[in-house]
Amino acid sequence: MEIFIEPIGRLINQFSKLPGVGKKTAQRYAYKIVNMSAEEAKEFAEAIVDCKRRVRYCSVCGNFSEAEVCDICKTRDKSVICVVKDPRDVVAMEKLREYKGVYHVLHGVISPMDGVGPNDIRIKELLARVDGSVKEVIMATNPDVEGEATAMYIAKLLKPLGVNVTRLAHGIPIGGELEYTDEVTLSRALSERKSL
Amino acid sequence: MEIFIEPIGRLINQFSKLPGVGKKTAQRYAYKIVNMSAEEAKEFAEAIVDCKRRVRYCSVCGNFSEAEVCDICKTRDKSVICVVKDPRDVVAMEKLREYKGVYHVLHGVISPMDGVGPNDIRIKELLARVDGSVKEVIMATNPDVEGEATAMYIAKLLKPLGVNVTRLAHGIPIGGELEYTDEVTLSRALSERKSL
Repeated sequence: MEIFIEPIGRLINQFSKLPGVGKKTAQRYAYKIVNMSAEEAKEFAEAIVDCKRRVRYCSVCGNFSEAEVCDICKTRDKSVICVVKDPRDVVAMEKLREYKGVYHVLHGVISPMDGVGPNDIRIKELLARVDGSVKEVIMATNPDVEGEATAMYIAKLLKPLGVNVTRLAHGIPIGGELEYTDEVTLSRALSERKSL
Repeated sequence: MEIFIEPIGRLINQFSKLPGVGKKTAQRYAYKIVNMSAEEAKEFAEAIVDCKRRVRYCSVCGNFSEAEVCDICKTRDKSVICVVKDPRDVVAMEKLREYKGVYHVLHGVISPMDGVGPNDIRIKELLARVDGSVKEVIMATNPDVEGEATAMYIAKLLKPLGVNVTRLAHGIPIGGELEYTDEVTLSRALSERKSL
């Protein structure tokens, strides 16, 4: 006899496909579904199908979009491009409600260890976008080894085009403490100190 | 402009309904759905609807079931009933592949703080099941305040019926260490010590 009856077992398998979800968590999720009303469960299922059906990638920036070109690309200042690793980084930047430019989503970073080379991410699409009208490209990849390497690589390609390439500042996080700041960050904060 | 486009925002809201899932996790799950194939997303959605449609509670023990009466109630030794708080406790017991009796799922425990009284959980259904053919009722509610109180309450109701009421043993977990065992557990292990 199986421990789970078939429909629950099948739903647990589906939930296990989500990132960071193991059998135990998937089981909790499945039980939650069983305890929902039929109406709620239907809404949930429809949201999944609907999301998959309606969402695609913007043909310009590579962010999620319902239309061929996303609202950000359509309405915002195209002279500044912020380059990020993936769509969730766009969300992080947008939450600031401060940045007025457009984005370029690479969908990955260069990582020879994982077999990801420059041609596997959207670098040539970025180069194609940088013409005379673009004044600045902000490299906003993560401050880890792959993110730094990708930023350097792209900067080298962009500089001959006469565009201003910048990088998000690194240093001690606001509210952080010197004592608990890791050495690499602290050393970076020191070498990039600013006059007051 | 909304940070998330509508279909993604809606799916994030749906995932946020799952237990322990906040906005950030829901966002990761939604992105995973977008990156699935249409076929996979459809399967996922169908598993949800299907699970909700096919799963109900066994009319005898209250565990999840596809039929009016579950397979465990149909095929196993009805002279021993194991009383648990909810269906996931049945799963924990079934994993042992050792217990041969049937279950009774209370769907909660008595908790005056949360406004749950004896009539809000499936106690009278349990009393109705206990007739001459039942030899033993194992109280397997959690060893916390509510679980203990519920076990005591039910035991008091069952004893006059002449049935043997038992409780899962409490003590130091196997592989645990004396030094790190909490005082209540250790005191319990001492007072319930056994001769070798």
